[in-house]
Amino acid sequence: MGGADDFAALERRVRELEDRLAILQLVASYGPSIDGGAVAEAGQLWTEDCWYDSDAPSAGADGVHGRAGIEGVAKMCGELDFGLAHITHLPVITVDGDHATVVGHSNTYQKVGDEFHTGRVASNRWELERVDGNWQVRLRTNRLLDGSAASKAVFADGLREAQDASTEG
Amino acid sequence: MGGADDFAALERRVRELEDRLAILQLVASYGPSIDGGAVAEAGQLWTEDCWYDSDAPSAGADGVHGRAGIEGVAKMCGELDFGLAHITHLPVITVDGDHATVVGHSNTYQKVGDEFHTGRVASNRWELERVDGNWQVRLRTNRLLDGSAASKAVFADGLREAQDASTEG
Amino acid sequence: MGGADDFAALERRVRELEDRLAILQLVASYGPSIDGGAVAEAGQLWTEDCWYDSDAPSAGADGVHGRAGIEGVAKMCGELDFGLAHITHLPVITVDGDHATVVGHSNTYQKVGDEFHTGRVASNRWELERVDGNWQVRLRTNRLLDGSAASKAVFADGLREAQDASTEG
Repeated sequence: MGGADDFAALERRVRELEDRLAILQLVASYGPSIDGGAVAEAGQLWTEDCWYDSDAPSAGADGVHGRAGIEGVAKMCGELDFGLAHITHLPVITVDGDHATVVGHSNTYQKVGDEFHTGRVASNRWELERVDGNWQVRLRTNRLLDGSAASKAVFADGLREAQDASTEG
Repeated sequence: MGGADDFAALERRVRELEDRLAILQLVASYGPSIDGGAVAEAGQLWTEDCWYDSDAPSAGADGVHGRAGIEGVAKMCGELDFGLAHITHLPVITVDGDHATVVGHSNTYQKVGDEFHTGRVASNRWELERVDGNWQVRLRTNRLLDGSAASKAVFADGLREAQDASTEG
Repeated sequence: MGGADDFAALERRVRELEDRLAILQLVASYGPSIDGGAVAEAGQLWTEDCWYDSDAPSAGADGVHGRAGIEGVAKMCGELDFGLAHITHLPVITVDGDHATVVGHSNTYQKVGDEFHTGRVASNRWELERVDGNWQVRLRTNRLLDGSAASKAVFADGLREAQDASTEG
């Protein structure tokens, strides 16, 4: 009790908790970074070579590439004169060393006249990397929940990995 | 400082943090398990003898009983050819040894044509048990937020318990 | 390894994790306290001299002042005979000793006939204080996401502070 091995084991557990809370903070930061038009802060959430692979028509044929691409989205959203909101819902997190995956729902809102309309409700998979001690997004996949097999597989695959990791751990 | 008693006390605090994050992960997993049609993974979130006590018409007169019942819901949702989403919002968690209660909002979305409609917005109480080291749902109560006393009591009772536990702790 | 200094450093890390989870619990409690009409429990989430600075018409010209004001909102909502829901989304948390700031989205739902309508979708900044060991809300700013500079600044300012604190930490 309290020996060097016990201490090291407890420290590892604390580090995993810190990782999980840092990852919660990372995915929670996405929406405010875009909706706030916080260009530099939005970019810092992603790796230099990131890819936001979204099937949203506004994301173009192949999604958004690179930190500069993400910063461009934040700049554009910051200049909109109508209300837009990007919501990230409670995620399922799997940490594996310096890599992590996150799955969960997202939805958007758009203000039209005096009302907010629900935009895209989607399944998401985030692949994260720890870079210089900070978690960043390398790849985010976003699929409209329209009943397609692809949109469901994002959730089913992510949950299987999370439960497998939990059993091994 | 750093004696066996101090170490044991710190380890207990770490274990409670681990419990809270495991419980967040559990309730965050519900929606993806159903919307992803992840049958076996959905079942693993619940105890064998669980009860999902919902007043949703689709849940029948008495809700959904047993792990097999939950797996049936996941299977059915996985086969739908239209979009459906089950969202669990940020929860209030009270841990008491191998039992825990969670209260919070939920809502559903359904894709109708090109739009997502908000379905049920509800209050929820989850009663959890630690089984073989893993947190599982034994009972979830779900009440439509229609102004009824029952739907409000889910929140008021849960918050009172959470604040009482925090004062005792 | 395992010396008094190492132990104290690990304990500080555990305390910060506890703070972050307590803050998550605090902001998660707001909606259930109001929608459940839990008058006393709602009041305990806020400081005596708090201010809920909201631009919602229902909040009056200057928002809601003091714990008694918040309790009045919970009492009024508890007596409504129609459905109303206050949702707090995944927040970005910055802890600085006995103070903390939180930014994130919120939205409301109101039941109209058989349907739930989305009400206000807003940006929020919460300024928290630790009072007698418990985190409480001293100031919450809530701005409708209507494209205004003020509503975006809530997010942009909050994210900048969060990333600055993370770099210094």
